[in-house]
Parts: sequence; C-alpha cells; structure tokens
Amino acid sequence: MQKLIEKAAVLIEALPYIRRFSDKTIVIKYGGHAMSDAELRRSFAVDVVLLKYIGLKPVIVHGGGPQIGQALERMGRTSSFVRGMRVTDDATMEVVEMVLGGKVNQDIVELVNRGGGRALGLTGVDGRMLRVRRKTVQGEDIGRVGEVVDVDPRPIAAATDAGFVPVIAPIGVDDEGTTYNVNADEAAGELASALRAEKLILLTDVEGVKDAGGHFLRVLTREEAAKHIEEGTIREGMIPKVECCIGALRDGVPRAHIIDGRIQHALLLEIFTDSGVGTLLSH
Amino acid sequence: MQKLIEKAAVLIEALPYIRRFSDKTIVIKYGGHAMSDAELRRSFAVDVVLLKYIGLKPVIVHGGGPQIGQALERMGRTSSFVRGMRVTDDATMEVVEMVLGGKVNQDIVELVNRGGGRALGLTGVDGRMLRVRRKTVQGEDIGRVGEVVDVDPRPIAAATDAGFVPVIAPIGVDDEGTTYNVNADEAAGELASALRAEKLILLTDVEGVKDAGGHFLRVLTREEAAKHIEEGTIREGMIPKVECCIGALRDGVPRAHIIDGRIQHALLLEIFTDSGVGTLLSH
Amino acid sequence: MQKLIEKAAVLIEALPYIRRFSDKTIVIKYGGHAMSDAELRRSFAVDVVLLKYIGLKPVIVHGGGPQIGQALERMGRTSSFVRGMRVTDDATMEVVEMVLGGKVNQDIVELVNRGGGRALGLTGVDGRMLRVRRKTVQGEDIGRVGEVVDVDPRPIAAATDAGFVPVIAPIGVDDEGTTYNVNADEAAGELASALRAEKLILLTDVEGVKDAGGHFLRVLTREEAAKHIEEGTIREGMIPKVECCIGALRDGVPRAHIIDGRIQHALLLEIFTDSGVGTLLSH
Amino acid sequence: MQKLIEKAAVLIEALPYIRRFSDKTIVIKYGGHAMSDAELRRSFAVDVVLLKYIGLKPVIVHGGGPQIGQALERMGRTSSFVRGMRVTDDATMEVVEMVLGGKVNQDIVELVNRGGGRALGLTGVDGRMLRVRRKTVQGEDIGRVGEVVDVDPRPIAAATDAGFVPVIAPIGVDDEGTTYNVNADEAAGELASALRAEKLILLTDVEGVKDAGGHFLRVLTREEAAKHIEEGTIREGMIPKVECCIGALRDGVPRAHIIDGRIQHALLLEIFTDSGVGTLLSH
Amino acid sequence: MQKLIEKAAVLIEALPYIRRFSDKTIVIKYGGHAMSDAELRRSFAVDVVLLKYIGLKPVIVHGGGPQIGQALERMGRTSSFVRGMRVTDDATMEVVEMVLGGKVNQDIVELVNRGGGRALGLTGVDGRMLRVRRKTVQGEDIGRVGEVVDVDPRPIAAATDAGFVPVIAPIGVDDEGTTYNVNADEAAGELASALRAEKLILLTDVEGVKDAGGHFLRVLTREEAAKHIEEGTIREGMIPKVECCIGALRDGVPRAHIIDGRIQHALLLEIFTDSGVGTLLSH
Amino acid sequence: MQKLIEKAAVLIEALPYIRRFSDKTIVIKYGGHAMSDAELRRSFAVDVVLLKYIGLKPVIVHGGGPQIGQALERMGRTSSFVRGMRVTDDATMEVVEMVLGGKVNQDIVELVNRGGGRALGLTGVDGRMLRVRRKTVQGEDIGRVGEVVDVDPRPIAAATDAGFVPVIAPIGVDDEGTTYNVNADEAAGELASALRAEKLILLTDVEGVKDAGGHFLRVLTREEAAKHIEEGTIREGMIPKVECCIGALRDGVPRAHIIDGRIQHALLLEIFTDSGVGTLLSH
Repeated sequence: MQKLIEKAAVLIEALPYIRRFSDKTIVIKYGGHAMSDAELRRSFAVDVVLLKYIGLKPVIVHGGGPQIGQALERMGRTSSFVRGMRVTDDATMEVVEMVLGGKVNQDIVELVNRGGGRALGLTGVDGRMLRVRRKTVQGEDIGRVGEVVDVDPRPIAAATDAGFVPVIAPIGVDDEGTTYNVNADEAAGELASALRAEKLILLTDVEGVKDAGGHFLRVLTREEAAKHIEEGTIREGMIPKVECCIGALRDGVPRAHIIDGRIQHALLLEIFTDSGVGTLLSH
Repeated sequence: MQKLIEKAAVLIEALPYIRRFSDKTIVIKYGGHAMSDAELRRSFAVDVVLLKYIGLKPVIVHGGGPQIGQALERMGRTSSFVRGMRVTDDATMEVVEMVLGGKVNQDIVELVNRGGGRALGLTGVDGRMLRVRRKTVQGEDIGRVGEVVDVDPRPIAAATDAGFVPVIAPIGVDDEGTTYNVNADEAAGELASALRAEKLILLTDVEGVKDAGGHFLRVLTREEAAKHIEEGTIREGMIPKVECCIGALRDGVPRAHIIDGRIQHALLLEIFTDSGVGTLLSH
Repeated sequence: MQKLIEKAAVLIEALPYIRRFSDKTIVIKYGGHAMSDAELRRSFAVDVVLLKYIGLKPVIVHGGGPQIGQALERMGRTSSFVRGMRVTDDATMEVVEMVLGGKVNQDIVELVNRGGGRALGLTGVDGRMLRVRRKTVQGEDIGRVGEVVDVDPRPIAAATDAGFVPVIAPIGVDDEGTTYNVNADEAAGELASALRAEKLILLTDVEGVKDAGGHFLRVLTREEAAKHIEEGTIREGMIPKVECCIGALRDGVPRAHIIDGRIQHALLLEIFTDSGVGTLLSH
Repeated sequence: MQKLIEKAAVLIEALPYIRRFSDKTIVIKYGGHAMSDAELRRSFAVDVVLLKYIGLKPVIVHGGGPQIGQALERMGRTSSFVRGMRVTDDATMEVVEMVLGGKVNQDIVELVNRGGGRALGLTGVDGRMLRVRRKTVQGEDIGRVGEVVDVDPRPIAAATDAGFVPVIAPIGVDDEGTTYNVNADEAAGELASALRAEKLILLTDVEGVKDAGGHFLRVLTREEAAKHIEEGTIREGMIPKVECCIGALRDGVPRAHIIDGRIQHALLLEIFTDSGVGTLLSH
Repeated sequence: MQKLIEKAAVLIEALPYIRRFSDKTIVIKYGGHAMSDAELRRSFAVDVVLLKYIGLKPVIVHGGGPQIGQALERMGRTSSFVRGMRVTDDATMEVVEMVLGGKVNQDIVELVNRGGGRALGLTGVDGRMLRVRRKTVQGEDIGRVGEVVDVDPRPIAAATDAGFVPVIAPIGVDDEGTTYNVNADEAAGELASALRAEKLILLTDVEGVKDAGGHFLRVLTREEAAKHIEEGTIREGMIPKVECCIGALRDGVPRAHIIDGRIQHALLLEIFTDSGVGTLLSH
Repeated sequence: MQKLIEKAAVLIEALPYIRRFSDKTIVIKYGGHAMSDAELRRSFAVDVVLLKYIGLKPVIVHGGGPQIGQALERMGRTSSFVRGMRVTDDATMEVVEMVLGGKVNQDIVELVNRGGGRALGLTGVDGRMLRVRRKTVQGEDIGRVGEVVDVDPRPIAAATDAGFVPVIAPIGVDDEGTTYNVNADEAAGELASALRAEKLILLTDVEGVKDAGGHFLRVLTREEAAKHIEEGTIREGMIPKVECCIGALRDGVPRAHIIDGRIQHALLLEIFTDSGVGTLLSH
C-alpha cells in the first residue's frame, strides 16, 4: 500500500505541469547517446508517446553526425571540419540526405510508432519548410551548409493537426531548390521560435551547462548565459547550444533546457517533476 | 537519481491507461469517508483534476445521507428507514433538496475548483435530466423516493463540452415536476449507462467486495456477481452496489469498480496502475 | 373576426421588438410577488419560455430573502440588518446556501421546465462565476456578504450555447473559496454588464420609480436618475435598485427597467409592447 | 391595464405554435386579393417578416394570372383556356416570363424588403430548380405549360441559409432548357414536398373548402378530401387546390391549409391562433 | 503527336494564371454581340463554366439595351435619349424590369446552366443589393435612371457560397423601394469594387481602347487613361467605359479590361494567355 | 488570332475532364524516363501542379530501381534477381531506404515545389501507412521484399487536407516494425484502392499495352486484360503492370491507365484530352 501511495504522489506531482503544458508545443532536439543506446531509445519513444497522449504537442528534430560519418567511412570518404562543422561537398551532401532523411529519420519514426504513437517523418525540403542560405564560417566557404532564414510551419501543422508526432531531419533548401545540411540544434531553435513553442529541449551527452570551475549550473537567465559566453566561462563545445537557446528565448520561447540524454526518461523527468534535470535557461 | 527513475517508471506505467481512457467518460459515485475526511477530500479533488487534464471526462455523482441526517437532527426531526432507504415525506424532501443541492453539491464544486479544475453543479431537476417515478419497496410507499426511468444527458454535455467537470446531486423529477430523492449509487449507474461511460467507479468505505468467508474478491464477472447475490454469499449492505454495477454492465458499460475510498488517491490508483484497488466487475 | 384582427394587431406590434432583440441577452432579476404568487409564477415562466423561443437569451437572477427568513425562523434563529442587508454569520450563510441554491433556485428551474423551457440552475460558485470580496457597510462588518469584483461568464455561456435558460442564485466566492451572500439586484447588474446584455430588467413590487411627489416616472436618463438620488427625491428603498441600473448603463448596457412584477406577463408587456410597463432608464 | 393583459394573452396563445414551428419550413402560395389589394399586401409582408424573425422559414410561391392577362391585353393578344389553363404559345410564354419573373416576382421581393425582411427572388430556371415536362390536358397540347418532374432545392437552401426569404416564380425548365409556365399551386405543393415543409398554405379568395350544401369544412382528412372530389361534393374551382394539398400530404407534408387571403394577417392567424382560419387538411 | 504537345503547351501556359486567380472574384460585364450572336453566346457560357470549375468566382452583370428597345418598339413606344441614356418614365421602367429581370437575365441563367454550370439570377432589388439615387444628367431629370450609392454583397455571397454563378440585372432600388434603371457598366464597376474583385472585364463590340490616331492601346495606367479622357484623345463612346474602369481601380480592383467580345472565348483568352485580348487598365 | 482560337479550343476540350475529376484522387506511379530525363521531369512537375490547382488530388508513388542499382554499384555490391525482383538482404535494404526515402523521394518533392506546388514526402513507415508481410516468389525467400496487407490512408489525408501533394516512397513495414522493399506499381495500386481513387496511372517507358502481334491496344476491359495474360498474348514485362491495374479495378477504382511517360506532359494529355495517351483499362 505504501508503494501505491508513492505512485500516486508521483502522478500528483506531475499535475501542475500537465496543466501548464496542456496543448503546448515542445520542440525536442534528439541526438547523442539517447539516439544510439537501445535502452535509451525505447525510453525516449515512451516519453514522447506519453507527452502526446497527455495533451502536449512534441516536435522532434534529430541530428545524425555519427551515422553520416559511418556511412562516409564505409564509402571510403573523409571529411574535413571547420569549427566543428563538416565541410560538405556535393557528394557528401548526397550522403547526408540519404542518411538523415532516409535512414535516421525513418528509424525514429518507426521507434515512436513502435512505442504506441503515430509519427510522420519530414525534412526541411517538404513544403520547403526550412528556407536557408549558404553559411560561411569566418569568411570561409564550407560547402552545402545552410543557415535558416525562414520557416514555413505548415508541414508540421499538417502532421500535428492529424494527430501525428512530426520527426524532422535538419535539411534545408534555398530559393533555387538546392539542399543544405543544417545544424540540428540550430534547426530545433528556429522551429521552436516559428512554432511559438512553450519549451525547447536539447538532449545532450552531458549533465548540463557547467561553469569554468566545473560547477553545474541549474538555472541561467538569458543575460547570465550571454555573459558566460562573453567571458569564456563555459566549455567551448557547449557554446553553440547555449547560443541556440538564447536565440529561442529572444524570439519569445519562454524556456529552453539543456538536459542529460543519458538518463532514462530524461524528457519526462524534465517536464513532469519539480526538480527537473539539466540546465534551464529562461528570461 | 534512483528516485527520479522510479518516478519516471510510475508515469510510464500510467501510459497505457492514459491511452485507453483518452476522451472517455468515467462516472464516479463520491461518498463516505472520501467525502467527509479533509485529507481525502483534497486527494479526491486532485485526482479528478488530473483525470480531466489528462484527457478523460470525469462525471461526479454524490450522495449525502449523513449530511441530510445531521440537518434533520438539528431541526429535531427523525426519519424511519425501510430496507436502508429513508422514508421521505414532503418536509423531509425539502431538507434533502436543500442539503444535497444547496450545500453538499456546492461544497464539492468548490472543492474541485480549489483543486485547479472548473466544476459545475447540477441536479436531476436541471433540464429534467433525471426522470423518475415513485418507488415502492416491497409494496410499501416510502414517500418521495424515486427510481430513474429516463436520463436526458444534455445538461451534462453542456458542462463537459464547455470544459467543466459536472457534479451531480441525485434528485429526480417526475412528469408533474415533483422532486424525488434518488439513491446515489443508482443515479451513478443510470448516468454511466446513459452516457455510455467507459467505467463506473463506486467509492465506498470498505476494501471491496468480499465473499461469505471474508475473502476479498479482486475480479468478478457479471455472472459470478449475480451468483453471489443469489446464493447470499456477499454482505447484505454490498448487494445494492453490486446490483447497480451489474445493471451498468448489462447496459453496455465495459467495467465497474467498487473501491476503497479511504485510501488516498484511490481513484488515480484504480485508473492508472496495473494492480488497481478494490473489486473489478466486468463481462 | 374582429377579435382575430385584434389578435393579429398585437402580434404585429411585437414585430419590431422581436427584430430588435433577436439573439440578444436580457438579464432579469426575479423576486417579490412575482416569485411568491402562484398565478404570477406561471405567468413569469410562460414569458421566459416565449422570450427563449422567439430568439432572445433570457438570464434569470433570483433573490430569496423571504424564503431565507422563513427558514431561519423555523430554526429559531433571528437576523439583524444593517441598511437593509442581513448580517450573515457562518451558520446563517449555510442556511442561505441551502435555501437559495438548493430550494429557491431549483424551484425556478422546475417552474421554467414546466412552462415548456429547459432551465439549468447555477450559483456563483459554479466555475467560480461570481468572484466577490467581503463587503463592509459604512465601515461595519456584516459577515459573509460579498460585493462582486469579477464575473466569469463561461458557465452561463455553457448553458445558453446548449439551449438552456440559466437560472442563477446570487452566491459569490472569494479567492479562498469562501462563499458569500450577494444582493440579487447587484448580481443581476454585474451579470448584465459582463454579458453585454441588451437589457437589465428588475421585477419589483411597485409600479416603478416615483418622485418625491409620488408621480410615477416613466423614463429617466442616467443623469436624471443620479440627480434624483443626490437630491433625495425618490423613495429610499428604491435607491439601491436605481443605483444598480445606473451602474449597468455606465458599463454599456443600453437600457435598464424597473417594472411592476405584480402585473401578469409584465416581462412580455415590457419587451413587446410600445407602451411598456414601469420605469425605463437609459442614456 | 386590461388591454395590456389581453395583449399578453395573445402572445401567450402564440407560444405553443412558435415552439412547434421553430426552424420549420412553411411554403406559402401567394395570390388573389392578398396580392392585388394594397392593404392586404402590406399585411402579408408583415406576416412573412414576423414568421422569419420568430424562427420559421417561410418560402413564398406566387402566381400572376391576372397580371399576365393584363399585359397580354395591353399588347392586343388574347388567350384561349383549356380546363382553366392558358394555352401558351411561344410569344405568350415570353410575356409570362417577363411578367412573372421580371415584374410580379420583384414586386413581392421589394414588398418583403420594405416590410423589414430580406427577400431574394428566384424562378424555376435558377439552378434549374423546377424540372418539368410538357403537360397535356385530356390528350390536348396546350403549349408551353409544364408539370413538375423534379425539384432541386439548392437555390432555395442558398437563400434561406443566408437569411433571405425566397420568393419563387413558377417557371419551369425541361432537359433542353426550354421554359414552361407552371401552375403556382402545383409548384407550391411540389416545393413543400421537396423541402419537407411542415405546412403548405394556399392563400385564396374564398373562405375555405365548402361542401355541396355550401357548408364550410373546417377540417378534412386526406381520405375525406379524396372522397369529396370523387363524389363531386366540392366546388369545381376548388378541386385542383384540394388535389394539390392531397399530393403534399401524400409526400409527407404534415398539414396543408386552404385559407382566406382576403382577411388581414390571415397567415399569422392561421399559424399562431388556436382557431386558425380556413380549411385544414391533414392525415 | 505534335498536336498533342501543342495542346499540352496551351494548358501549361494557363497554369500561372490559374494559380494567380485561384478563388478570386472576376466581375464580367456581358453585353453586345457576345450576348446576341448564338455562337458567341455558347462560347461565353463555356468560358464562364470553365472559370468556375478551375476555381475562380465569376460574377456576371448584363445589360439589355437592344432587347429593351425591341420590346418598347413592339409596344409602339419610343424613347428619347440624353447623352446616351434612355429617358425612363414609369411605363418604360416597367418594360425595363420585365425585359432585363424577366427575360434577358433568365436567358443568361439558362445559357450558363446549359453549358454545365449552375447559375442563379439576381437583380439589385434582391435583398436591396443595389441602392441607388435618382441620377440627373447635366441638371436634367431623365426619369427612373439611378446611380449606385451602396452595394450589399450578401445576395451574391449567398449564391457563390452555394456554388452558383450569380447573373445580375442592373436594376437598383432607392430607400423608398422605387426601382431604377442602372447602366450595366457602372453596376459592374460598383460590384467589382464592393466584392473586392481581382478583375473587372467589360465585353464590348470593339477591339479595345484606341487613341485619336486610331492606334490600339494595349496597356493603360490609370493616369494615362485619365489624361486621354481629359485631352479628348479617345473615342467619346468609350469614355464612360474607361471612366468606369478608372473608378474600379481607384476602389482597389487591381486590373480592369476592355475586351473584344466578338472574338470566340475572349474571356478565356484574356484570363489564361500571356498575350491577352483588348486593353488592360491598371495602376 | 487563329492561334488564339486554337488555344481556347484546347482549354474548352479540357472542361468536361476538369468537371469530371473535380476533387477526385488520382494515384500516379512515377518512374522510368519521366523520372530520369531533365526535360520530362520538369514537364511532369508542371502537370502535377496544374492538376492540383485545377482541383484534383494527385498522389505520387515513385520507384527508384536504377538509382538503387547505381548506389549499390558505387559501393561495390551486386544484387541477384528472382522474377525481376531484387533479392534484398539487410545491407541492401538499408541502401534501398536511404536511396528511395532520402534521395529519390526528396528530389521529387523538390521538383514539385520548384514547379510551383507544395509537396510532402512520405514513406510507408510514416504512421505505418503501408503494412506488409514478407513475400515469397515461387516458394523462394527473396529477403526483405514485402507485399501489402493493409493501408492506413491517414498520413496521405494529413498531407492533402493541408494542401500538399503527397509523394510516396514504396517502403513498407510489418507488425514488428521491420521495413521492406515494395514494388512501386503494386504500392500505387494498393493506394489507389485504399484511397478510392478515380484513376490509377502508371507512367512507363513504352507506348502502352501491345498484343502478341505488336498491335497497340488502346482500350481493354478487365476481362480482356485477364484473358491476354492467361493466353500469354502480351509481353511478359508488362504482365505485372496489367495485373496491378486489374487489381485496382477489382477494388473499385473506375479506370487504370498504362501510359507512355516518354511523351512530354503525358499526364496532362491523358487526363484532359479526348484521345488520351496509352492503354485504358476499365470495367
């Protein structure tokens, strides 16, 4: 009986969050261990389906760097990187499209289907949802890597209006119809802005944001986060993710989270418990 | 962290039930300790609000025998009973209407409001929702006690369509507009049938149904339940509740539950855990 | 045949009013003789049902002072009054709730049902429709008497959208969920404002507003009415009613009427004939 | 005051009829004195507008024999008649179209507009609403006179859905698009059937149906009416009207009325008073 | 095969126009040879039906001067003209109403029906759609000739919402309900403005607008057109048509066309080919 | 001018087809030269966009055998075939998914977007739209090749309801979520059946169906087609396509077409001209 009462307490703890997020859009960047470990994959799928049934509108944006790397490797190709971004020539882009859009995306769609949901895979090419322009990094051309200039949310609305969980591969398209590789965190941030999402959640392979001294930062205001970047007091690899969160906050998304995807049901715990997991960025 | 994982496990355990009951009507007979104990009252309110937010449609039917008794006592009146039913003369009926419709009903409405929901109180007089005829018990007239002959679900639909939790006092009305006291279990059963509810749940002050030997019966088919009544192998006081469940099953309600309202969050545990609480009656 | 032509003339006279009030909300304060005399009760019910069928949206707010007084008397309690308002301790408030919400309200609901309409009873507790704060009269605490601070019209909309005539008992609730007695005229005025009603009609036991010389005032502008109050040239008992009308006019209700509820079908005659009955207050 | 009470009584008498006919279609054949006398015209328009505002759906079908006759006369043409039907050659048909569709129809439209309604004129050519075939009378060709073979109610629905009162000139069209003169009573009867009207009302210049002895028949069943025709015990001129009513009853129209259009507000009195005017035919 | 490819090319050429005009209203003034020549009539009907099926909303406004002239002549009447406008006494107006509303309008309705569409005839009297006042020409009264002062587009919306092509006779009505003859070009221009049409198209019996030297003007800005009128460099008979186009442009209609109705399928060619036919007036 | 008239004639010829197919679903199997030749690709895209704008609902199902072959070749893999079907091991299936779902599908989506439409790519995995079971060919296992057992049309409805052209890669999924290669003709046929399509069109690289003597067969009934297969009088390579058409006809699709995709605008010509192109199979 004691166990039952504890069970009830957990459900009750979730109630205010269920009320707050009822009918709200939550954009989730899915990647890292949560996407490669079989157990964590199942746990992620169940979380997404639960969110859907409870009345939220989860939107999944996934990356696929490792899978792209493996495919290129199998073909005997190598890539060079500029500031962490893969220099993407036309042959590489073709592999990116096939792996992200054809393999990784559909695996996640089926993962959610198997968890009891109904998912529908999209890329930024569908309905030209993600309009991009060619990105240069410090003046250097890195090939078909795009930065988002506009989002047409209608393909996502088509999916959610019909009860599907949209799963989105971060491939963009320019005015001529040329496709580009887009950073998944950036795509998730832009989609959260365009969809007026209630939350942006980035699943990572670390505990959250840490300062220079290695102290875990549970909560950051937009200003504090900007100051950390300016002063160089957070890990370099974390900077783009934090910038992406700052951008979403600036566009009106109330809260952004950088959480530890290595924890089972990290998503659920973030949304439905008082303590949450990882770092919260808000105004 | 272990604690967080256990929390997640509870939410996950609830998922299949959330899916199964999504958008379904659950009729709950509310009474006994769950209605008189302050702690249990709060727990009940939270449960109802949670059900509502998760996407179910709870409909509450309440009794109020003890409150009626106290009011009569304060006025110096006494009542006689026939087979557990209060003989209800006109003066008594006036007290019944005031206590059930004016006091108990509104207290529950406010209880649910305070828990974060939006409740709306109704009686069977509203829109002549509960049409009754005068009941006789073993040929004996017991005054203004009615048995339900027809249910017009439109007042309840008006409330639920507008996002309210309907809270219903079991007062019925005949073709001439005369009001009658209706047994709350019976009213709940008839409403469950008329609303094509997914579940009927009777909150009681006992663990569930027990057989002659005092053994708790976790699951009963409709046939088994009928046989127990026929053979006299269940407690007499429980018979009307079991009969009421049998009636609902016969009218197409898939499951009826007689549960222990003395447990905190009994409602939640019944609906969202694998083990459930109390006795399940089904086909 | 002459008689038939006269009948037609009456219907024709009603036409412009039917056109003007089509789909408009009319808030009616129901009380006095119209509520206690059997013949007048029937006449009122028929009027309300006719309004409903012709395409108006009547909303009824009732008082119940005499009924509360009788109930208290039967229980051997006495009340003191401050400026016409009953000092309401907790025990008295319980009686108020039971009599207004459980007895008077439901009697009116059934009255309208019997007249061929479909009524639905509400109190300000339902959906916390009438939010109030404790009222003081000339600095004096008079117990659980509330003044309206906010109106949530959704419970009324739920009823009217589903074709019901809402019948409202003037019980309010504060932020903690404590209930309060509210003056019925005041509640009607506040509801008329919140519902953007086309008319507020107060049924009284007098012919209408009279000046100091006893001359019946058929029409009053808001300014004239205010001046009469200031100069003390209308009967004291009428002042709160006139003030309530002035408030509704100020909030945008186009017309307010203080009419003689002792006339059969006073409501109908007010709305559908050129002469009207009672005093009209307008801009 | 006595006068006011009588006024109220008339409105009250109308209530059950308003309830019964709420949202129902009433097809009215308009013609005779009611169409030529200025006073009766105004009275008719007011009646139609009142019906509309009270929630009924009046559909007007008009004739125009006298107006056609005058126009032909002014042009120096003469017509021959077979069993009361005008032999209609092509030149005559052109006059029929112009007078019925261009003059009479639009006069009635404007009459209703002026009465405060919004009318919209139609003929059977609009949307090929009235499909007819050439009629022969006792084997004799009488030119472009049509009998209705099919009704497409969509033009009428377009008008009523947008809040207009449809006013219909009885001109039909065959599969080749040739237009035909249709008897207005017949057109009204066919439209009543196709629109599943609640009532068909024929405005005539007589008191109603009379038997051979000149006795006015207030009520006739379908069988009695058929028997009167068979036995020749009603006036010959009345036979087509009675047959048209019998046809509508057979097609499911609950009631048909042959009333005296020379009485002011005959329409209103028929629908809203207990006594009615003229002859009622029903099952 | 070559022929097939050419066919496809034509359809392809139409595509951008189909996209541009999808769901847009096109007001067409129909008259002249296109209305009198049997072959051109059929071609016009087919064009209108094609427009409708492809997703545009054609609205037809027709004249009928020659038909009115013939009818008057047959009756032995003569008309005088002031600046091209027929002086219209009451007897003449009656003929106008009968010919325009009863004959010409219904012929066009049936023409479109026969072409496979569903047309519905209207005049400015229906729902008092065209409100006019009496026009004077250079201070001279010319009888019942009206100029448009207001347009109520609801009768047209009723028709188009139900899938019909509205066909409109230019008869207006003043506040007293008196009817007036309205110039069809003017009526078309005013309707284009009120309906926020995408195009106004006037079908004429000339190639388009020509300058003083007889040179055909393919494109005119609003300013150029105004200058031509001011300088007297276009044919006098064309001036009212050009003024009517200028008025529609000023009211926000993006494009107006004066085209040669003597060409088969002129309408189709104007809308769906790159070259167009006739003169285009735009901003 | 002559040229203009011819243009109009083409549009007019299309009218009856536009009317017949208004709002109807047309399933198109896209493949062969029409998919590899740049000019034909553009022509196809324009055709699809035109169909969409004119009011049809095109659904595109594509193959990709040559593209899969090239990708496998680049990776140094070879495939064996059984009766024309590629034996598909797991590694091959991964390539199939990437090429069909990630590359070919998205290329077609972008092709339609560029043509002015809004396309949305789907595979049978999305929402588990194409449920399959493992296929055996003459008892021989050929790996992950599936035959369709059930179609859930909701993902397609989500796309078309929101105005998108669905583009579908023929990948199916079994109850365990394992993916399978599905023959594109077969997938198109099954989708046509499930969507109650008006037409199934297979774009091929031949003129149409020919008999043993090489005579082109313009029209075939279902029975004739079946007889040709039975008697071996059509080319073997054509048999599966003809069988797929026969299946769709049997499931209620009214017409199936095997057309020559090497002709520019073959789709348009098939649908909108009297002669059509290729072979028509119908009941």
